[in-house]
Amino acid sequence: MDTQALQQTFLKLRSNKAFELFVVGVIIFSALVIGAKTYDMDPGLLRLIWWLDHGITAIFLVEITIRFIGEEHKRNFFKQPWNVFDTLIVVVSLIPIDNSDMALVGRLVRVFRVLRMVSIIPELRMLLNSLLRALPQLGYVILLMFIIFYIYAAIGATLFATINPFLWEDISVSMLTLFRVMTFEDWTDVMYETMEVYPLSWFYYLSFIFLTAFAFLNMVIGIVVNVLEEEHQKERDEEALAGGKPTVESLSVQVEELKQLVQAQNALLQQKASSRDS
Amino acid sequence: MDTQALQQTFLKLRSNKAFELFVVGVIIFSALVIGAKTYDMDPGLLRLIWWLDHGITAIFLVEITIRFIGEEHKRNFFKQPWNVFDTLIVVVSLIPIDNSDMALVGRLVRVFRVLRMVSIIPELRMLLNSLLRALPQLGYVILLMFIIFYIYAAIGATLFATINPFLWEDISVSMLTLFRVMTFEDWTDVMYETMEVYPLSWFYYLSFIFLTAFAFLNMVIGIVVNVLEEEHQKERDEEALAGGKPTVESLSVQVEELKQLVQAQNALLQQKASSRDS
Amino acid sequence: MDTQALQQTFLKLRSNKAFELFVVGVIIFSALVIGAKTYDMDPGLLRLIWWLDHGITAIFLVEITIRFIGEEHKRNFFKQPWNVFDTLIVVVSLIPIDNSDMALVGRLVRVFRVLRMVSIIPELRMLLNSLLRALPQLGYVILLMFIIFYIYAAIGATLFATINPFLWEDISVSMLTLFRVMTFEDWTDVMYETMEVYPLSWFYYLSFIFLTAFAFLNMVIGIVVNVLEEEHQKERDEEALAGGKPTVESLSVQVEELKQLVQAQNALLQQKASSRDS
Amino acid sequence: MDTQALQQTFLKLRSNKAFELFVVGVIIFSALVIGAKTYDMDPGLLRLIWWLDHGITAIFLVEITIRFIGEEHKRNFFKQPWNVFDTLIVVVSLIPIDNSDMALVGRLVRVFRVLRMVSIIPELRMLLNSLLRALPQLGYVILLMFIIFYIYAAIGATLFATINPFLWEDISVSMLTLFRVMTFEDWTDVMYETMEVYPLSWFYYLSFIFLTAFAFLNMVIGIVVNVLEEEHQKERDEEALAGGKPTVESLSVQVEELKQLVQAQNALLQQKASSRDS
Repeated sequence: MDTQALQQTFLKLRSNKAFELFVVGVIIFSALVIGAKTYDMDPGLLRLIWWLDHGITAIFLVEITIRFIGEEHKRNFFKQPWNVFDTLIVVVSLIPIDNSDMALVGRLVRVFRVLRMVSIIPELRMLLNSLLRALPQLGYVILLMFIIFYIYAAIGATLFATINPFLWEDISVSMLTLFRVMTFEDWTDVMYETMEVYPLSWFYYLSFIFLTAFAFLNMVIGIVVNVLEEEHQKERDEEALAGGKPTVESLSVQVEELKQLVQAQNALLQQKASSRDS
Repeated sequence: MDTQALQQTFLKLRSNKAFELFVVGVIIFSALVIGAKTYDMDPGLLRLIWWLDHGITAIFLVEITIRFIGEEHKRNFFKQPWNVFDTLIVVVSLIPIDNSDMALVGRLVRVFRVLRMVSIIPELRMLLNSLLRALPQLGYVILLMFIIFYIYAAIGATLFATINPFLWEDISVSMLTLFRVMTFEDWTDVMYETMEVYPLSWFYYLSFIFLTAFAFLNMVIGIVVNVLEEEHQKERDEEALAGGKPTVESLSVQVEELKQLVQAQNALLQQKASSRDS
Repeated sequence: MDTQALQQTFLKLRSNKAFELFVVGVIIFSALVIGAKTYDMDPGLLRLIWWLDHGITAIFLVEITIRFIGEEHKRNFFKQPWNVFDTLIVVVSLIPIDNSDMALVGRLVRVFRVLRMVSIIPELRMLLNSLLRALPQLGYVILLMFIIFYIYAAIGATLFATINPFLWEDISVSMLTLFRVMTFEDWTDVMYETMEVYPLSWFYYLSFIFLTAFAFLNMVIGIVVNVLEEEHQKERDEEALAGGKPTVESLSVQVEELKQLVQAQNALLQQKASSRDS
Repeated sequence: MDTQALQQTFLKLRSNKAFELFVVGVIIFSALVIGAKTYDMDPGLLRLIWWLDHGITAIFLVEITIRFIGEEHKRNFFKQPWNVFDTLIVVVSLIPIDNSDMALVGRLVRVFRVLRMVSIIPELRMLLNSLLRALPQLGYVILLMFIIFYIYAAIGATLFATINPFLWEDISVSMLTLFRVMTFEDWTDVMYETMEVYPLSWFYYLSFIFLTAFAFLNMVIGIVVNVLEEEHQKERDEEALAGGKPTVESLSVQVEELKQLVQAQNALLQQKASSRDS
């Protein structure tokens, strides 16, 4: 059996509905195993879980191999980020971990197997892609918000560090405190504390809340407008593709054709008139 | 009196405005009785409430019977989910409860009588239907959000279970804690506690908040876009139905007719020209 | 000087820009006096405030009188709700209060003088009207939300009253607690308390949060869609009023006229043809 | 070398990409220095920071001078608010501060250097401008909200001042407390306290929350509608500029031309008919 035939067989297997459902089933089962591990269990069950873990890793390894062999152009396989992600998850699971320190890391890596659900279901992959695509459009608003945070954190760390070092010790801690203020989480406790030393510091908090709320609102509206515009564009493109339905453009062509008809008629009439005159 | 005539009489009764208002009145009264039962009352009033409860059950039983007999095709009656719901509420109320343990369940079932308000007022029924119809469209976003919750809960239960078992004992408790973090409810207390052991755990919380907020925002925008699109579609359909108002489509038909007229003219002129030549 | 002339003079005075600005000035001054009264003051200042208060009442009385006399049709004056409101505020201020118990009520009534700002500035009046007009459209959503609150409060009062009477004593207290849960204000404290007795009560809270959030979201989207539709309608009406700009409708009329011209031509040609044949 | 040539050289330098990148780099470095100063440092580092601070000030001074000399019309330079801001930041940094009291002010002024990031990156400047432009449109909603706050604060200070002076002492403190209630920050603690004296005061809080939430919602929707309308306008303007694409307007012109053609034909036909008759 040559490589070509093997690749064709594996490509068929890969596109097989039953194969896909089996993989989704294994991923869900692996997610349940991950969840089960967070409960206290007796040693017998732990042993079972250990075997299940290795079984899932083996199945994933086989599946990736099938998908890799099934790929016509081997180079393109690793060009798709989700394939790289899947391979990484499987490869890291293969590293033998005996050391107890690393055992925790090994467990955490296995948690990310649940993310394979996103890589295997096309709808989720599309959804995530559309979320990620929206991010760069918001780049400048996020930069502006970061600048606001940075300036307020620098002021906060300069003025309030001696009042409560836990909240305002340095600029990074201050930024965390400001994020807390932005979520309204016990922000008055933070404020009342500093107001005892600086009675006017309420202005610091209120101006920060207004600025970030305003910037955030702008960000949200920016996304909404973008999404609506994309929808409109899609609609218009679909209409253009459908073609059947008349648009203002097609109407204009119709009227233009009509005009030429009438002009031809006019020419005919004038020609007749002149021929009779002669 | 034959069954046919009986059915007709009951159908008329059922569509009667006064009958409908009476039923709405009884439902509101039943809601008030349910509310009254949550207050401390002297035995005399309790006795009265007991009688009222049974009276309401009797009226509801009669009403359902009338509506069932009034139905032309008995099979269709139970095809409408609200009829099934109404019947269930009445049937469960009829079960005699002496046991004190079950008394609580009986009281809770009676609470759902208030929901009959939704089943009897068409506008509320439509509103609920439109809410339920919006749900499946959001299926994948909800699945994505569940995956995010599951992964973070698995990580949280793995790392933080020993720090605070009350919040992070296993994956289900961790998911509840994460829901709390998502609502910003004392989330900094949860964070500061784990930051004492893992100083970088702020990244865990902030990334979770950003991811869920972003996914939630996307969900909301998805609903808005869907609703706006439905409204647009409805508007267009109404315009199409109204017909009177010209659209680009009807204009195109008009221009096409005009073209045929001019072409007929052309044919006529050319015919004349050729007839004269001959 | 007859009544007619008096009315005309007062109507002019009332529409006078300087008079209006003076009244706005007095209202702002009265708001400042109201604010000042909340601070601790020495008796001398209190005496001054007392005189200012009476002076403002006098000015308001004069102003209302002028506006009433300036009104052509006396009956219409009290048909405008804002006039009734203004008169009420002034009349209540006139009632002499010596009793110390009533002094508090008197002070509270004076606070509502600030609302005269809304009655005197047309833009604010329009804004408030538009807010109030949006309310009835939301009637059914608000009713649905009230039903959800009522059912959950009835269940809460039935199950949790013995756990914490302060929060769940009866249905009205339970509704207040549920409103608190809806605002996410220390809702986990409320939940953890009942979870000790009913470990599954987290479902009660989470389902309530989802239902109200979903209904609220729907309400907001409903307003947005309504507002956008109104804007669209307004735009279309303006376009129709402007007239100059051609619409699909006016185009249709144009094409129809053209058709009639061509048909007349056809008739002419056919007539000629037949006249020649004969 | 004459002034004209100097100005031209500096104008070129100012528009130079490398020069711009260098200035952005210095601003980022200055932001990092500002952040570093909030950490505890040994004297050696502090000395270094002191030198860096002065170096940055010197570079900024040179940069502003270059941009000022590069400006063709010296008067226009200070007409642009960002130039004024930049100059101010540099000039204040030049004031020698020896006094330890003023050292804090000096440090705070240096924090605002980070804002130069906004002044130097055109996209951020545009973003901030668009945010500021949205503000006046919301003027009346903000005024209405302020009136609501003022009235509720006056009532709160009148009724609750004796219950908890820390929260309700006078009208300004009450407004801060109401802002806290609006953000749902421990608002039930504030409410439960006053409900012990005035059991019906829950109505005060709930009505306040509903009013402000409703006004806020209206504000947000106002912005969304404005932004969407601007986008529509922009789109229409772009279409009008593009020109190539036919619109209802251009169609109307086409049909009008067609009508004239047909009318000319009619005239021709009638002329012929009459010429033959004669």
